[in-house]
Amino acid sequence: MSESISHVNKELSKYIERLEMPETLKKSMDYSLQAGGKRIRPLLIFATLAAFRKDIKIGLPVACAVEMIHTYSLIHDDLPSMDDDDLRRGKPTNHKVFGEAIAILAGDGLLTYSFQLLSELNELNISETQKLSIIYELAKAAGPEGMVGGQAADMEGENQTLTLTELEYIHTHKTGKLLTFCVKAGAILSGADTYTLERLETFANHIGLAFQIQDDILDIEGTSAKLGKTQSDNNHNKSTYPSLLTLAGAKKKLQEHIHLAKSILRKLPLETEQLEKITDLIGKRDH
Amino acid sequence: MSESISHVNKELSKYIERLEMPETLKKSMDYSLQAGGKRIRPLLIFATLAAFRKDIKIGLPVACAVEMIHTYSLIHDDLPSMDDDDLRRGKPTNHKVFGEAIAILAGDGLLTYSFQLLSELNELNISETQKLSIIYELAKAAGPEGMVGGQAADMEGENQTLTLTELEYIHTHKTGKLLTFCVKAGAILSGADTYTLERLETFANHIGLAFQIQDDILDIEGTSAKLGKTQSDNNHNKSTYPSLLTLAGAKKKLQEHIHLAKSILRKLPLETEQLEKITDLIGKRDH
Repeated sequence: MSESISHVNKELSKYIERLEMPETLKKSMDYSLQAGGKRIRPLLIFATLAAFRKDIKIGLPVACAVEMIHTYSLIHDDLPSMDDDDLRRGKPTNHKVFGEAIAILAGDGLLTYSFQLLSELNELNISETQKLSIIYELAKAAGPEGMVGGQAADMEGENQTLTLTELEYIHTHKTGKLLTFCVKAGAILSGADTYTLERLETFANHIGLAFQIQDDILDIEGTSAKLGKTQSDNNHNKSTYPSLLTLAGAKKKLQEHIHLAKSILRKLPLETEQLEKITDLIGKRDH
Repeated sequence: MSESISHVNKELSKYIERLEMPETLKKSMDYSLQAGGKRIRPLLIFATLAAFRKDIKIGLPVACAVEMIHTYSLIHDDLPSMDDDDLRRGKPTNHKVFGEAIAILAGDGLLTYSFQLLSELNELNISETQKLSIIYELAKAAGPEGMVGGQAADMEGENQTLTLTELEYIHTHKTGKLLTFCVKAGAILSGADTYTLERLETFANHIGLAFQIQDDILDIEGTSAKLGKTQSDNNHNKSTYPSLLTLAGAKKKLQEHIHLAKSILRKLPLETEQLEKITDLIGKRDH
């Protein structure tokens, strides 16, 4: 797994390196792409491919595309007019280093470039139907009905006490849809049938919510040093799982989602070891 | 032509209407999409299809996608940290109405959604190869090696005297590549051969530059009322064609590009009346 992450990092560098474009903007895109991160999204793609006994290499371009989308969303979310964060993964945020204008453009550039990668995708045995299906799913997961919509709802929810339904809407859209896309993309690349695709999608929805609940718990129990960011959700008076359910209630909810996710995996006729490992990781991560 | 523009406007409304997403963000996306504009990009797609005697309706989804991209770029360019414009097409800019955060997200949403449209494209007789080719060309034209790169270079060039080569880099990237994409997309949808595609691309490069030179001339000779925007390039001390070539020199250069564009059209065995009309329009427009 750590080997496949190093593959992703190398490929991301190569994809940026080959671009003929203004130097500062290029540095800015590269800076945030290489700022570390857990690469949980690529891992989900690879683990899903492994579940179908596929060569995980065929997932590499999609893994890079999704990391570009994820990175662009962090750059834009950190902007002064959005969450106004100075630190991300222990390093100054993009706009702190390159200024707001370049940060906005770096985000725009990464977002657009990710679709170029997916339309190229010259990897072995990927049909045009599969490529188009992956482009469609990524755009839907990242766009107005997905991540962008979730971010807008998140901002509108600041300084308000949300219901649990409203909070779940924000999280399934802001982070969940892109995580779910990764599992779906792995399944599409593996030629999964509709039933399996749907079961894996439900699995991914559970780990997406678990991921976010754990995020909220870490905002209370974690330290800035380990998280590499300031505890901004408190600063913005955002509703969180612990604030709505108590800390103990949030922990219970987290375990429920982990349990449901694993029970889906157990019933599928696939090699789900890696997916189970990631599920456990999400429940126990400390940063 | 005005009929086809009204088709585009209606389709754009429908594409936004069907989205399930936070209401404010939806209004913000719709506000800028419906703010008018000349729809020159859709017209180029339709005129190219007409040159091949194709039904221009097959270009409608691509026309909508490119208007979304163009609109997103205007929303982001107008932001306080970019060109800081209060007026666009005679109306308050997006961030003036909805705030910076929603304006950034509206741009992100339009950009992402445009690729979703293109991956759906269920229109008659468009092959998967054509769809992927259009997605690739649009991402390349709009991304770091295209429009986004041009905007970054434009911002870096503020308060500097540029060479003509540097100025042309900015304009071929910031506006030219997307205009060229429209002609290419029309040609791809028409199944054009490689030679014709290349000739049309060169044609489009000329009208792209003509468009920008005329823009610079209008910034001197036009009125705010007709332009619907403040004369911002002067405010930012940007180099322009008239500042590098004198006003008379810029007008001469404009006519050269118009002449070269038309001479390419005349040698192609196509029905190029509509493309010629647009070329004339670009040379003579007053807003």
